[in-house]
Amino acid sequence: MNQEKIADLKNWMHQEKIDFTYISDPGHIAYFSGYESEPHERVLALFIAADDQSFLFTPALEVEDAEKSSWTYPVYGYLDSENPWEKIAALLNKRTQGTPRFALEKQALSLARFDQLKTYFPASDFSHDVTPLIEKLQLIKTEPEIQRLLEAGSWADVAFEIGFKAIQAGVAEQEIVAEIEYQLKRQGIRSMSFDTLVLTGKNGASPHGVPGETKIEPHDLVLFDLGVVHNGYCSDATRTVSYLEPSDFQKEIYGIVLEAQLAATEAVKPGVTAGELDDIARGVITKAGYGEYFNHRLGHGIGTTVHEYPSLVHGNDLVIEEGMCFSIEPGIYIPGKVGVRIEDCLHVTKTGSEPFTKTTKELQIIQ
Amino acid sequence: MNQEKIADLKNWMHQEKIDFTYISDPGHIAYFSGYESEPHERVLALFIAADDQSFLFTPALEVEDAEKSSWTYPVYGYLDSENPWEKIAALLNKRTQGTPRFALEKQALSLARFDQLKTYFPASDFSHDVTPLIEKLQLIKTEPEIQRLLEAGSWADVAFEIGFKAIQAGVAEQEIVAEIEYQLKRQGIRSMSFDTLVLTGKNGASPHGVPGETKIEPHDLVLFDLGVVHNGYCSDATRTVSYLEPSDFQKEIYGIVLEAQLAATEAVKPGVTAGELDDIARGVITKAGYGEYFNHRLGHGIGTTVHEYPSLVHGNDLVIEEGMCFSIEPGIYIPGKVGVRIEDCLHVTKTGSEPFTKTTKELQIIQ
Repeated sequence: MNQEKIADLKNWMHQEKIDFTYISDPGHIAYFSGYESEPHERVLALFIAADDQSFLFTPALEVEDAEKSSWTYPVYGYLDSENPWEKIAALLNKRTQGTPRFALEKQALSLARFDQLKTYFPASDFSHDVTPLIEKLQLIKTEPEIQRLLEAGSWADVAFEIGFKAIQAGVAEQEIVAEIEYQLKRQGIRSMSFDTLVLTGKNGASPHGVPGETKIEPHDLVLFDLGVVHNGYCSDATRTVSYLEPSDFQKEIYGIVLEAQLAATEAVKPGVTAGELDDIARGVITKAGYGEYFNHRLGHGIGTTVHEYPSLVHGNDLVIEEGMCFSIEPGIYIPGKVGVRIEDCLHVTKTGSEPFTKTTKELQIIQ
Repeated sequence: MNQEKIADLKNWMHQEKIDFTYISDPGHIAYFSGYESEPHERVLALFIAADDQSFLFTPALEVEDAEKSSWTYPVYGYLDSENPWEKIAALLNKRTQGTPRFALEKQALSLARFDQLKTYFPASDFSHDVTPLIEKLQLIKTEPEIQRLLEAGSWADVAFEIGFKAIQAGVAEQEIVAEIEYQLKRQGIRSMSFDTLVLTGKNGASPHGVPGETKIEPHDLVLFDLGVVHNGYCSDATRTVSYLEPSDFQKEIYGIVLEAQLAATEAVKPGVTAGELDDIARGVITKAGYGEYFNHRLGHGIGTTVHEYPSLVHGNDLVIEEGMCFSIEPGIYIPGKVGVRIEDCLHVTKTGSEPFTKTTKELQIIQ
């Protein structure tokens, strides 16, 4: 249970005269309550009360696990044969007099669930969206959070090492993915932060491509994009390496992406804006004539989820502060030809930044 | 692209005088369009128009992949630096005169996205929820869908075989998970339908427990719950096996769960209700004195996602029909002592049912 962040949330609730904040996103429920779960279509809900009557509401089969977590307020369950909203309404009504005011997670909450809640509290005020506050709370990481991100990052370095060793002619992308995940799982990693990407040759030109049966051939560039979840925190990093000697063209593209990645990374410090960082990297690539092939933003925040705030995108005036954690991941993707991306996630320090992943960014040639 | 299902959807739209149906759930987008993608926080949207002006809207970096899919209508992209809703509104306005009427996926669509769309179409009617229709369309599987589910099921059988072979004293749950997924990935399986569960001894008593460092000990019951995604269709099956001779108590619990599983499976045929099937399995377990330890519904539908309709739960009057596909998965979970679950997914035939997984359900004793 994250008491510090719950206190921040309650301060905001008092200011806004909110009685209950309904947290519906499973990742955010884990962030505040300490209880991690993927409820699929069942209802998992965290109600933070302005007073000390907060509660967690879970499917019946998860009550025992939830009670074992660091969450110290009550946990209530519902059976599949019961109407969860009727039970939630009763729990809320026991805790309030009159008409409670709710804050909702409007980015996460579905229309259907909102309609259910509204049925039981037709006169309530639901106008407050807690999403921006949660984004703000998650934006600046504490020292223990940064430690966890560093640990998750070092597991990504381990993953790269396993993956690079697995490269040889005739090995399929999917076999390398299998090898990486197998070795990590044997070492105790329970889950990757997303489906591991190993893309070879022109497959690398699809930024979100799916690894398959394509086999590595001599002189391919091989793109690895991967991360792990460790102690609830994610890593996310990308390296592109060459199997045997690269061509001049491959070296040129790699050099431009590296220059963009380094330029943006060196510019990271408190005071710069998120949009300026994107502009710096994009400027390098555009000046080299490949601007149209860098078709995504420069980066995204990272923490308990693999994509959170800030968004490093042109026009974002958000001022970077110490403790923010995000990726710097420029790329050039020329369809049918080549794809290169280089990505580190980092945390902002007083005067600059420190990356979570340390694998060299110089073009590595695998023999 | 699923032309038959799109035609069914359009028929409904004509009846209800809907101009556009906005499909927002990535799994449902894949179901109709044939384009599979997990867009994370980016906007991926499928707009089915009542006329022939349907379109798919994706992040810019996915346009190329989407165009390569079986979807034949236009694909439009947006850059991270652009406002996707402005572009969507322009695309919709080009396709309509006056005030369009929308159907939404109210189970999947977030309040925030609904608010965005409403901003551009303040006078539109948004009262129609397409969720029940999609559930109905997905409820009865076609012959080719059943073929795919059978193939996905036979991969689950392969997974059990790998897992059972990996059992020995001192092996951690997580090592067995790693072994199963490694072997499957090497054979071309790209993703599991959910995080593979291997739970030993009393850990099996947590229906949604997380595999960890616990090592298998002689006379443990070991619970495997797993499935793969194959050609877009999922499998999901559970077996509980004994490492060396089980105790009389373990045999008793296993025997009750097996009896419940077989009784419900034998009762599956067109005409029975979903609720009756739950009652049959629950009746067996309750009669044996363990009703309180079967704390979830009997089963759930399966198809392109691992949890869909129907829901086999007490009180559900839905009448079972030929072509429905769902799990039968009773369990007994006695905290701190033992957990047993046995699960097959099956499809309903004219006179009964056929399971997708064929691994024996008799208690297997691993030596």
